[in-house]
Amino acid sequence: MKKNDSATRDPGHFALLSKDQESRARAGVLMTGHGPIETPVFMPVGTKGSVRIMDVSELKHAGAQIILGNAYHLYLRPGHIFVEELGGLHRFTGWDRPILTDSGGYQLMSLADLRTLDRDGASFRSHLDGSLHRFTPEKAMEIQRALGSDIAMAFDECTPFPCDQETAKQSAAMTLEWAERCAAFPMKSGQVVFGIVQGSVYPELRRWHAAKIRSLPFAGLALGGLAVGEPRAQTFDIVDIVEEELPEEKPRYLMGMGLPEDLIDAISLGMDMFDCVVPTRNGRRGTAYTSLGKLVVKNALFARDERPLDPACDCVTCRSYSRAYLRHLFACKELLGPRLVSLHNVTFFVRLVKEARAAILQGRFGPWKKEFLGNYLGEEGIAD
Amino acid sequence: MKKNDSATRDPGHFALLSKDQESRARAGVLMTGHGPIETPVFMPVGTKGSVRIMDVSELKHAGAQIILGNAYHLYLRPGHIFVEELGGLHRFTGWDRPILTDSGGYQLMSLADLRTLDRDGASFRSHLDGSLHRFTPEKAMEIQRALGSDIAMAFDECTPFPCDQETAKQSAAMTLEWAERCAAFPMKSGQVVFGIVQGSVYPELRRWHAAKIRSLPFAGLALGGLAVGEPRAQTFDIVDIVEEELPEEKPRYLMGMGLPEDLIDAISLGMDMFDCVVPTRNGRRGTAYTSLGKLVVKNALFARDERPLDPACDCVTCRSYSRAYLRHLFACKELLGPRLVSLHNVTFFVRLVKEARAAILQGRFGPWKKEFLGNYLGEEGIAD
Repeated sequence: MKKNDSATRDPGHFALLSKDQESRARAGVLMTGHGPIETPVFMPVGTKGSVRIMDVSELKHAGAQIILGNAYHLYLRPGHIFVEELGGLHRFTGWDRPILTDSGGYQLMSLADLRTLDRDGASFRSHLDGSLHRFTPEKAMEIQRALGSDIAMAFDECTPFPCDQETAKQSAAMTLEWAERCAAFPMKSGQVVFGIVQGSVYPELRRWHAAKIRSLPFAGLALGGLAVGEPRAQTFDIVDIVEEELPEEKPRYLMGMGLPEDLIDAISLGMDMFDCVVPTRNGRRGTAYTSLGKLVVKNALFARDERPLDPACDCVTCRSYSRAYLRHLFACKELLGPRLVSLHNVTFFVRLVKEARAAILQGRFGPWKKEFLGNYLGEEGIAD
Repeated sequence: MKKNDSATRDPGHFALLSKDQESRARAGVLMTGHGPIETPVFMPVGTKGSVRIMDVSELKHAGAQIILGNAYHLYLRPGHIFVEELGGLHRFTGWDRPILTDSGGYQLMSLADLRTLDRDGASFRSHLDGSLHRFTPEKAMEIQRALGSDIAMAFDECTPFPCDQETAKQSAAMTLEWAERCAAFPMKSGQVVFGIVQGSVYPELRRWHAAKIRSLPFAGLALGGLAVGEPRAQTFDIVDIVEEELPEEKPRYLMGMGLPEDLIDAISLGMDMFDCVVPTRNGRRGTAYTSLGKLVVKNALFARDERPLDPACDCVTCRSYSRAYLRHLFACKELLGPRLVSLHNVTFFVRLVKEARAAILQGRFGPWKKEFLGNYLGEEGIAD
């Protein structure tokens, strides 16, 4: 699909282009206020308005179509009204492609102090200065409206793991009420809202919640509350179950995941959109993801290794620097090391999902997946 | 002078192209084993084989012709033999333009523990792990030979400030003996060696030392032991005095300086080559140097300032990001902030000296200097 074709569609329009014959993998195009996004898509995380150490031109060169921002962080600093006055998050950050903002539900649960929750919203103290704040569904949407993101997420409670069934049930019911209020909130023209399915690890609760959330007028549906500590098999059981409840005609966003093998399994189960801090967070610490598996750059094994991180990669890091040099940079704590490995990792994750999409469109997703995993989990590399 | 013309010259050949009528400013071309360097030139500092947070392609885009490495640091980690086995510092770092290495004299005096000095050399403990090492003039040259730098610096003692006259005299005499040994050391084909003039702040001692050092077969002459804490006026008095003793036909390198106004004054006094950590070190801390003076990016003054750091600059930072966004990055401790300000600063320093050169060649150095300083020290900016 050419850009011009998509550009005639309204933001939120999702076109399903192809479905894999042997799995639930799918390829599509989601229209946004800043242009189309080809799915499946990996979205680098720029929590505070910056994808760690990465410059906008590098993100584009890496092939990133859309990045994430976070309502909680940007509300606290520099402030959503402030960002709005400066022309919105796109203009403020220099990123002119689509942006998705998380509503802050997750951060509110994990970062804020002295959080008190009621059915109307949550009061909390800032993790920065202890100041008192309150988020309601309307407030979370107002913040995202001001930031001007293309895709805003409904305000939800992200349950921790483990979470007993009764707590999960009450939380899911509250998240549903909040979702109704978010769906009714008037966003700016061009902005669309995604709903979030919760329900912890309880299949019936997840099914019920998915059916309820899908009935609301959201442009897309997300799976939240996963990858929070539960066993991997359980994560994918839930993805499997929830996917069956989701409408084919809307994009599905699996929040906060994951490692390369997770992305591929989730694509196989019909997920379309992914975000994860792994490429940048682990990259800063010296872990590189390559077509031959995971490399811990600091390892003495690479001291004299003149090969690039990934011979199959065309990023600046792989074109210009050896493993031996990268190891030296980490040994010396030179910031160029974290920077170059982050750049490679983001390029790798974005490309991996692009390649999955190309394989789906060409009707060879199964063989592609087998070949990729064979190399990635093979002898030379060590998967997570 | 075209590159092809220079390429026919031997490394170390220095062609003086133009001299300013009203000052001692000069423009020339110095040939090295990795191509010509147009002087005056600012050399970004890459102590451990990396100009902090900067990628090779960015350094080139900033116009950097030559970068520095440091023998002491690279000897300790990753080791000069190691670098040699991997093909030398150029190949190891991916920088294929000229490299100058400092001999380690300065670091040995300021960083090493338990240093004991004798006329033959210096024994010291590594600042990294306390291991015992010894540098002699021959050892310092052997390290630089192995690193494969284009310009190696003679091994010297860098006297601190203050330093009493008798100590300075004995030190200068020892540095002279060391210089003779360095000048006699067989370097690789294509490598050239610069001598270093010491003598603290004592005019007669400086004159005597300059006359002695200039008599040795060095390709260039450096002024060391300045900008170590002495008053600025005294620094430039010494530069003035020493310059009169230096041969016109060899390049002069003022080590470790300086701020923009220092560079211009030093160029006026006939200096050709400069290095300083100010652009990267101060950039990491949020100080930007611009055509209108120094900006402390974190200042609340810039919270809503949508202008680039320097409207007169074409670097990536100034083309893509506002002062408001940079301030936000520093407020959030996002590493993109230090990275972007470092990139701007290196671009600014390199370009400043390039502009000085262009003005010398066009016979308008005086007016250019007046205009630059008028803007830089003017109302809007605050010079150091």
